[in-house]
Amino acid sequence: MYNWYLESGKEADVVISTRVRIARNIEKYPFVSKMRNEEAQKFLEEMQEITPKIGYGLKFLKLKDIDDLTKMVLVEKHLISPEFALKNTENKAILINDEENICIMLNEEDHLRLQFFASGLDVEAVTNLATDIDNKIGNLINYAYSDKYGFLTSCPTNVGTGQRISIMVNLPALSKTGNIRKVLEIVNNFGMNIRGIYGEGSKVQANTYQISNKQTLGISETEIAKNIKLITEKIIEQERLARKLLEKNQIELEDNIYRSYGILSNCRKISNQECTQLLSDVKLGTDLGIIKELTDLKVKKISLYTKPANLQKFVGKKLDAQERDVERANIIKQIIKE
Amino acid sequence: MYNWYLESGKEADVVISTRVRIARNIEKYPFVSKMRNEEAQKFLEEMQEITPKIGYGLKFLKLKDIDDLTKMVLVEKHLISPEFALKNTENKAILINDEENICIMLNEEDHLRLQFFASGLDVEAVTNLATDIDNKIGNLINYAYSDKYGFLTSCPTNVGTGQRISIMVNLPALSKTGNIRKVLEIVNNFGMNIRGIYGEGSKVQANTYQISNKQTLGISETEIAKNIKLITEKIIEQERLARKLLEKNQIELEDNIYRSYGILSNCRKISNQECTQLLSDVKLGTDLGIIKELTDLKVKKISLYTKPANLQKFVGKKLDAQERDVERANIIKQIIKE
Repeated sequence: MYNWYLESGKEADVVISTRVRIARNIEKYPFVSKMRNEEAQKFLEEMQEITPKIGYGLKFLKLKDIDDLTKMVLVEKHLISPEFALKNTENKAILINDEENICIMLNEEDHLRLQFFASGLDVEAVTNLATDIDNKIGNLINYAYSDKYGFLTSCPTNVGTGQRISIMVNLPALSKTGNIRKVLEIVNNFGMNIRGIYGEGSKVQANTYQISNKQTLGISETEIAKNIKLITEKIIEQERLARKLLEKNQIELEDNIYRSYGILSNCRKISNQECTQLLSDVKLGTDLGIIKELTDLKVKKISLYTKPANLQKFVGKKLDAQERDVERANIIKQIIKE
Repeated sequence: MYNWYLESGKEADVVISTRVRIARNIEKYPFVSKMRNEEAQKFLEEMQEITPKIGYGLKFLKLKDIDDLTKMVLVEKHLISPEFALKNTENKAILINDEENICIMLNEEDHLRLQFFASGLDVEAVTNLATDIDNKIGNLINYAYSDKYGFLTSCPTNVGTGQRISIMVNLPALSKTGNIRKVLEIVNNFGMNIRGIYGEGSKVQANTYQISNKQTLGISETEIAKNIKLITEKIIEQERLARKLLEKNQIELEDNIYRSYGILSNCRKISNQECTQLLSDVKLGTDLGIIKELTDLKVKKISLYTKPANLQKFVGKKLDAQERDVERANIIKQIIKE
């Protein structure tokens, strides 16, 4: 059994992951930005106490008890935000399970940021899980709620459902055929956000985009889920059409993909940025059945264990940037050979 | 047994081949540019008659009886010149043996252009062979000779010995370290020519240079041979020093070499120009013992059978440029797997 991010989900040729995030605050405390230390600590104690009652194998972990490398590993897995990991860690904690498909940040922008993940496209399963855990916690501790506005949040953009669904997609063919701009425009007109994913050094990760709902107020959770599923299915359709177009020039496509594979599998050092770019081509190759040398699992493993912190966790030692580039090339070869 | 160009000669890490070319003309005929058709044909008949007497398994072949593809194969092997292969082929012929280390062009710029080849650096063996065959032919037919100037040739630059020794060398490290300019300068000051080798489309072939003597008048064959051997040995020394320098940054070097190998062995189409460039890096890798996946023979085979005409000869059919690029990638993979 692998963690969710190493598993192959539905529509895995295009969709990397489905995430549901719910922002919640506790009635009796001021928002995090106004909270005194004692209040923040008090809240953490309460949460620690109710953790076993929530179930799902959730464990309570204070952020100050997690070493820096492990925190960055969680950031790279998109389980916690970079700001949460790095600033004022004294008053922060997470609830997380072994599968890592549930991760609740405490005292981030809101008192609770509940996050639920699945590999591939699985809006229904993830929202069902989200609703269940959200209800459980809501029964154990009083959420800040207004009959007029719905759930109250630190930032007005989240007021209402407090729910944001994000679908991470891989759109190499739409990028290559140049149709990506048109798609980005359409998604925006549907009241959704679509944006590039930032990797190390604030450079956009190759061909990876995140679709999420803009609206949280005046719309139900069910509607949000329905809309985002609909728009994602449209994007999947467009990406697959673009791939069909690319396949018309089979030699060109295979050449592109195999050159990337050739560099990836033979280099002796490689940056995270270049690795991500090449891996995007290679993933297109496995998705289209062109590359036989790699499986989906291996692509996912390479993608995860070549990220700076996960790489160091994988080899079990601290490495500087140059050492990481060399070790990254080793890990790629090792995973391919497995 | 392979032809000389597939064998590994002395100093093969730097020296590709040794060639001796001797220009000779026949006393009783005007120079080729002034020759009438009947005279040219008469000369060919005489040469055909004496061919068996020269020995060495030489065969007389009229150029008009050789198909265009085979002619281009000979050009790519540097056995005949492009001008000789393409223009006024009616009055031309070659004497060639199966090993292809002897090739005599008839009615090129001079009546006879005797050429002798060996893999690697082997000036003595090649000049000995050249002298022997030159003497044999000189005893069978009267060469144009002046007591004052020596052998008379169509172009004044060849008058005297009529002999030019050319050493083809591979200088990737001097190119990479940027010291190649200094070396070119020194060679020129020694009264030698050094120039890039032109491949398809008049682009210089990556890191490959040809060293040859400028002077043919007022100098003996022995002196020419001594000087060119000396300067070549100096260049070999410099190239090896440059390689030692590159080896100090082992990871950088290995990364360069293996990225080239990765593309070469995985691409699905590749131009002759790019192939030559990548192969130069890969050859440096086999020479330094870095690349284990390839042998010298395989590098030589790839180098030969990826050239446009040899490639078509290899697969046994005519191909346009795009088809060649695809077939080139196939051949490379095929030779690597052998």
